[in-house]
Amino acid sequence: MPTDTVKVKVIVTLKPTLLDAQGRVVKSALHSLGYSAVNQVRIGKYMELEISRATAGDAAALDATVKEMCDRLLVNPVIENYSFEVTE
Amino acid sequence: MPTDTVKVKVIVTLKPTLLDAQGRVVKSALHSLGYSAVNQVRIGKYMELEISRATAGDAAALDATVKEMCDRLLVNPVIENYSFEVTE
Repeated sequence: MPTDTVKVKVIVTLKPTLLDAQGRVVKSALHSLGYSAVNQVRIGKYMELEISRATAGDAAALDATVKEMCDRLLVNPVIENYSFEVTE
Repeated sequence: MPTDTVKVKVIVTLKPTLLDAQGRVVKSALHSLGYSAVNQVRIGKYMELEISRATAGDAAALDATVKEMCDRLLVNPVIENYSFEVTE
């Protein structure tokens, strides 16, 4: 039975060419704890949006809306990349 | 050809029972922009770890190590849940 909302999972990551200061700190913390096998850590954001199916329209419309929300608010396109996935 | 590192993607989310203040702010910002179909936003963290395959051991050992890293440093088990996925 389909629910009346769709869940969209958005992952936002810093562009690979940019220095991830937070990631470097976490990496050295992991090294201090003895996890020396960790070569790199990069930190990003994760967002879960619940969107009502009735207003969202079909899959293509929903995709377009999520892209627009990312471009307009959720993501800084100058320094970040994003990907998203629609689940039920 | 297998690379010499594995990539582990960790998603950390606030426990569902906790109020996500940041998510509420993003939700009302989305509403102000006209995206009224958004019912809920929850914000989490995303981490990408690169672990050298030689030191990591087999899949079970790697899983155990990542769990340990999450429990010891990356996640606050009092307020957060996590899940991870190992990719090549």
